[in-house]
Amino acid sequence: MALATTENITSLAHQDAGGSFGPAVALSCRECGARYDLGPSFACIECFGPLEIAYDFGRVTREQIAEGPANIWRYRSLLPVPADVATKPNMAPGWTKLVNARNLARELGIRSLHVKDDSGNPTHSFKDRVVAIAVEAARTFGFHTLSCSSTGNLAGAVAAAAARAGLDSCVFIPSNLEQAKIVMASVYGGRLVGIEGTYDDVNRFCSELIGDELGEKWGFVNVNLRPYYAEGSKTLAYEIAEQLGWRIPDQIIVPVASGSQLTKIDKGFKELIRLGLVEDTPYKIFAAQAEGCSPVSAAYKAGHDVIRPVKPDTIAKSLAIGNPADGPYVLDIARRTGGAVEDVTDAEIVDAIRLLARTEGVFAETAGGVTVGVLRKLVASGTLDPDAETVVLNTGDGLKTLDAVASEARPTAVIRPSLDAFRAAIA
Amino acid sequence: MALATTENITSLAHQDAGGSFGPAVALSCRECGARYDLGPSFACIECFGPLEIAYDFGRVTREQIAEGPANIWRYRSLLPVPADVATKPNMAPGWTKLVNARNLARELGIRSLHVKDDSGNPTHSFKDRVVAIAVEAARTFGFHTLSCSSTGNLAGAVAAAAARAGLDSCVFIPSNLEQAKIVMASVYGGRLVGIEGTYDDVNRFCSELIGDELGEKWGFVNVNLRPYYAEGSKTLAYEIAEQLGWRIPDQIIVPVASGSQLTKIDKGFKELIRLGLVEDTPYKIFAAQAEGCSPVSAAYKAGHDVIRPVKPDTIAKSLAIGNPADGPYVLDIARRTGGAVEDVTDAEIVDAIRLLARTEGVFAETAGGVTVGVLRKLVASGTLDPDAETVVLNTGDGLKTLDAVASEARPTAVIRPSLDAFRAAIA
Repeated sequence: MALATTENITSLAHQDAGGSFGPAVALSCRECGARYDLGPSFACIECFGPLEIAYDFGRVTREQIAEGPANIWRYRSLLPVPADVATKPNMAPGWTKLVNARNLARELGIRSLHVKDDSGNPTHSFKDRVVAIAVEAARTFGFHTLSCSSTGNLAGAVAAAAARAGLDSCVFIPSNLEQAKIVMASVYGGRLVGIEGTYDDVNRFCSELIGDELGEKWGFVNVNLRPYYAEGSKTLAYEIAEQLGWRIPDQIIVPVASGSQLTKIDKGFKELIRLGLVEDTPYKIFAAQAEGCSPVSAAYKAGHDVIRPVKPDTIAKSLAIGNPADGPYVLDIARRTGGAVEDVTDAEIVDAIRLLARTEGVFAETAGGVTVGVLRKLVASGTLDPDAETVVLNTGDGLKTLDAVASEARPTAVIRPSLDAFRAAIA
Repeated sequence: MALATTENITSLAHQDAGGSFGPAVALSCRECGARYDLGPSFACIECFGPLEIAYDFGRVTREQIAEGPANIWRYRSLLPVPADVATKPNMAPGWTKLVNARNLARELGIRSLHVKDDSGNPTHSFKDRVVAIAVEAARTFGFHTLSCSSTGNLAGAVAAAAARAGLDSCVFIPSNLEQAKIVMASVYGGRLVGIEGTYDDVNRFCSELIGDELGEKWGFVNVNLRPYYAEGSKTLAYEIAEQLGWRIPDQIIVPVASGSQLTKIDKGFKELIRLGLVEDTPYKIFAAQAEGCSPVSAAYKAGHDVIRPVKPDTIAKSLAIGNPADGPYVLDIARRTGGAVEDVTDAEIVDAIRLLARTEGVFAETAGGVTVGVLRKLVASGTLDPDAETVVLNTGDGLKTLDAVASEARPTAVIRPSLDAFRAAIA
């Protein structure tokens, strides 16, 4: 794995004096705080900790944001992107619906519940958010190929975004993914490579590739572009707060794969408070995993600080990361905010998908079954306050994981076109 | 089929003195102009012509609209819905992206091309627009069950909208639809009935059912609620004009199933002109069909005014209506505006799906392949002006018609996780 050096970072940043990164001013190590110029780097050369974007935000007002477009670029002054990002060819994701889930709330006995439904994004998962930021970084760094390791949703998001942006793409997935995700990842005309192994195998392979000459001038959105990419998840926090009328919810349930999304939602809420865009009210972040891939939940329940990697075995393939990079941070945040980490079985996931569809008309992928299933479990156990304002995330689309519900979601009857046949069928 | 009588319409309208239909004031016969009070009626008792909504619009300004929500309810003052419709539990569809298709334009040699991408709607087709209007009418008329005949997309839209609205649903489809559409239509927990036959068989069956006591208190969105339902398609015209900066495009390519959508887009443009919301500039409407179900295109090419019904045989199942109710109006509009009607083969549909995906990162269902394929054909034949501002509609989502591209959209390679294997695969 090629580590960043101060030299090559500086030279890249100098090529880009035009403010391509907006309010972003540096990369900063999450562990030791060392700072670096903005570049395609992801690990601290002092302590090997992950690098994050550091900002110098100017004055940002609710009015400025409200005047922006109905996508994540309304928050461009809070993201590492140029001021004119909205005019460039990109997928313009975000500003997905915050569904007031009255029926589901009633059924679960919760006072106020909203579903943040990211199936409304261009390729129908939250991944469009993170990829959109990575594409801008890739342009700035002069990369010609966009790449990633993916459990499926990211593959489609990268391939589509590269097509729109006029970049090549080469995407790596475990070869056993759902057919819908495979077709979607290849229809955009880039290269799609199936790897015989788990997501963690795919990820290790990409780390090798990035150090090899084969991977030169490649932007791996979740490796060498990761600091930029990961910031896209902050927009979930911004949108939820703005859509609630500039208020942070009391409780939020977030799915955990690598854990990055959850840490960035926390970062997003903290930024809104610091900038005075919302009141400084307490919030609890709950993390949701599938039992068949629950290393963070297991550590939380055992009171450990260290995550023991697992080999995933769950229908929630988009969350099937057995060795989650940001797992320890998820534990920290759940504990610090007074939340929790919980997991649900595959059967509970399917039940939750059907519950959400039946009550709210939202057809979630398995990851949405995980969050809604965990929500139900947390209410039942008394861990979640039913009187507090609650938001649950649906990060993907049921059309991509049809097999999870196909055996149960079938026609009531198949009949000849006659009233008698219909009478007989509904009798 | 139960025809409307002035008596029963009046009594229903009287139950609703609260302005449930906003600016709508009457039903009006498209053929003879006879007017009726607003009710669950769809055919003129004088001449059997189709009934449409008549309005008394007040003053409507761009500013009022811009202040509305990012969904079709921003146009509530132009639709038969109550003023507080945005606060009710509905799917809030619309305000989908108008994609500036720079890459596709370049490839086709067109100066300015936009794709109106309705795959971004809640159930990923334009049907959410029409169903949302029908749901409000169903509430007002006291119907407890929402129903429809469907080629697939409408089934999912009705089932989802009924779930959100707290209504029962019973949806009828041809039993041979794509699996994704069947699963989606049943996952929301309503009744789904497969009919052995074509869409036209399903439609005839529903017409019988609506006259039977079995169908009492049922709102068939595309039969007895059709005048309300159909108005939802006007929002496509409104959004395209507003997203272009309050301007009507010179040319637009619209898919034709029943033909209703195309007639309502024309109606929408005309309303915008009449209300002074856009300049009165000429526009051409082009209609697109699949060769395997092209009764309107056949009539257009033969110079006929009458549509001869066909038995559909095409992969574009969402357009497979062999006896299109609004076909004659489509002919009128294409001829009056200087447009045309054209069709493409199944192979051209698949090519066009892949072309749109590769150039713009938009994965369309077969209906989108039809419009983009027809666009390409019209440019090649010189029928379409490559220097005029052009909009092409994508009305649905590729995830629902995976089989159309599955044999061609596959991984480039499947390998072991090693650099050597990758080198060999890309050599």
